[in-house]
Amino acid sequence: MNDLRAVAVWRDGAAVRVPADQPVVSAFDQGLGRGDGVFESVLVVDGGTPYLAAHLNRLAGSASLLDLADPGASAWEALLGAVRTGWPRDVEGACRLFLTRGLGEGAPPTALALLAPVPAETLRQRTEGISVVSLGIGVPAAFRATAPWLLGGAKTLSYAVNMAAQRHARSIGADDAVLTSLEGQLLEGPTSTVVWAAGGTLHTPPVETGILPGTTQARLFDRARQQGWPTAVTPGTVADLHAADGVWLLSGIRGPATVHTLDGVPRADAGLSARVRELAGR
Amino acid sequence: MNDLRAVAVWRDGAAVRVPADQPVVSAFDQGLGRGDGVFESVLVVDGGTPYLAAHLNRLAGSASLLDLADPGASAWEALLGAVRTGWPRDVEGACRLFLTRGLGEGAPPTALALLAPVPAETLRQRTEGISVVSLGIGVPAAFRATAPWLLGGAKTLSYAVNMAAQRHARSIGADDAVLTSLEGQLLEGPTSTVVWAAGGTLHTPPVETGILPGTTQARLFDRARQQGWPTAVTPGTVADLHAADGVWLLSGIRGPATVHTLDGVPRADAGLSARVRELAGR
Repeated sequence: MNDLRAVAVWRDGAAVRVPADQPVVSAFDQGLGRGDGVFESVLVVDGGTPYLAAHLNRLAGSASLLDLADPGASAWEALLGAVRTGWPRDVEGACRLFLTRGLGEGAPPTALALLAPVPAETLRQRTEGISVVSLGIGVPAAFRATAPWLLGGAKTLSYAVNMAAQRHARSIGADDAVLTSLEGQLLEGPTSTVVWAAGGTLHTPPVETGILPGTTQARLFDRARQQGWPTAVTPGTVADLHAADGVWLLSGIRGPATVHTLDGVPRADAGLSARVRELAGR
Repeated sequence: MNDLRAVAVWRDGAAVRVPADQPVVSAFDQGLGRGDGVFESVLVVDGGTPYLAAHLNRLAGSASLLDLADPGASAWEALLGAVRTGWPRDVEGACRLFLTRGLGEGAPPTALALLAPVPAETLRQRTEGISVVSLGIGVPAAFRATAPWLLGGAKTLSYAVNMAAQRHARSIGADDAVLTSLEGQLLEGPTSTVVWAAGGTLHTPPVETGILPGTTQARLFDRARQQGWPTAVTPGTVADLHAADGVWLLSGIRGPATVHTLDGVPRADAGLSARVRELAGR
C-alpha cells in the first residue's frame, strides 16, 4: 500500500505536495534531532475528515505549550487538501500533521502533512478488541500540573517512551498499555484515552494529571450525555477497570478499542461496546 | 556559518555525503514522527574526534535499550569521515550521530551524521560559566531502574521535555537547568551530567536513577583518580550543590561549564574549574 502514501509541506504560505518516497525534512530540523514539535493523527474516511476541528484545536494547544507558532487552521486545511487529492474514498487513511521548531530558535517552524492507509493491525484491533497491560510512569498524578516543563497535555513528537511502552506490552503478549501514576491512578494509553463504564456512567481520568485531552473521548462523552448516558471525570485505578462493565482505549484512528484482557485477566463484557462505537462515530 | 554544515547518510552499506541544505529524512521516518531513535553529540576539534569511542559505546547501549540495530562503529566512523571532509581545523564542530527506527518495525534503521560549528553561545558558556535552576521531573530516584519502558539511560531523540526545561530556565533568567527526582535527589542537566566537588572529592549522581552515563564525566573521573583526586558516585541534593566547593555541568560539546549561580544564589568559587577543565580535556 506504500504507493498510496502522500506528503505535503508548508512553503512560502502554501501547501506543496511532494513525492512520498523522497526526503522532505532537513537533518538539522529540531523535530528530528530533539523531538521538538507537536502532532495530530486525523482520520480520513469516506473522503472526509469529520473530526478535524477537534484535532486542530488540540494542535493549537500543544503548540502553545511548546511556544511554537501554529500556522493556523487554514494552513492545516490546505495541507490536508493537498494530501487527500486523489485519495480513494474506500480506503481509510491516517493523516499525521506535524509542526516542528524547524531549524531552531528564531527559524520558521516546519509544518507538514502525511497520509497513509490505516494499518491492517489497527483495523483488526478496532474490530476484535485488545489485550492491555498496566505500566507505571512513576510520576504522582498531581505533579505535572505543577511542572510546565514536563509538557503535560501537549502531544509532542517525543514519543520514544510511548513507543517503548507499546513494545514492552507486545513483548509480554499484550497489544497495548495503560499508563498509571506513581500512586496507581489511571492516566492514559501511550496513544489513547482510557474510558470505562461503571455504575451506569462513563468515566475517564482528569486531564489535570497531565494526560492528553482525548478528541474521541470528548465526542463520545458529548453524545452519550445527549442520549441520557451520564459521564464523569473520575480518578480511577486498575482495580476499577477490572470491576468495570466495559473498558475502552479511545484514539482518533483506531476508534474505541474494547479491552478484553487486562494484565492477563479476561474482562467481562457487558455488551456496551457496540453503543460506545456508535456514539464515538466509528 | 551555515555554509559550513555537512550531512552524510548511510545507504546500501556506505556513507554518502549529501547537500546540507537539502532534505534527507522521509516524513514517515519514525525518528521524526515518534522521536523513536537515539543520538550522540561528538566534538570535532583540531581536525579530530578525540572522544569518539566513548560516544559510540554509549550509542550502542542506547540502541540496545530501544531494540534498534546499531550499524556499528565502522559505519559511524565512515559517516564521521564523510562529514569531516573539508572541515576547517580551526573551527570546533558539533557532530550529531542519529540512529532512528526508519520507516518502522521491520524496516532498516536510518543512520546519519550532521556537522555544524559549535554555537557561539555554547563557547561563551564554556568560558564564562552558567546560571542554573533546579527543576523536578516528579519521578522517584529509584523508579526508572524498575521500569525499562521509561528508557532510563538511553539518549533518545525524544528531547522535547529536555528542551522545554532549558526554555523554562531561560524564561526565568538562567542559562540551564539541573533536574531533580521526586525526593529532590540530583539527576542530571537536560543535556549534561552534574559534577560537584566537596570534601576533597569529585561527586556525580548514580546512573541507577535513570540518568545518562556521562562521557565527559567518565573521562574527568578517570583522570582525576589517576592524579590522586578521589571520585565518588553520590546521591546528592540541591543543598549539596549550594555547599560544594565547585559545581559543573559536563557535556561533550560545551565541556565542563562552571555553575556560578544556582536558583538565583551566587555560588562560591574555590578555584577548581581550571583543573576540572584541564582534566576533562577541554
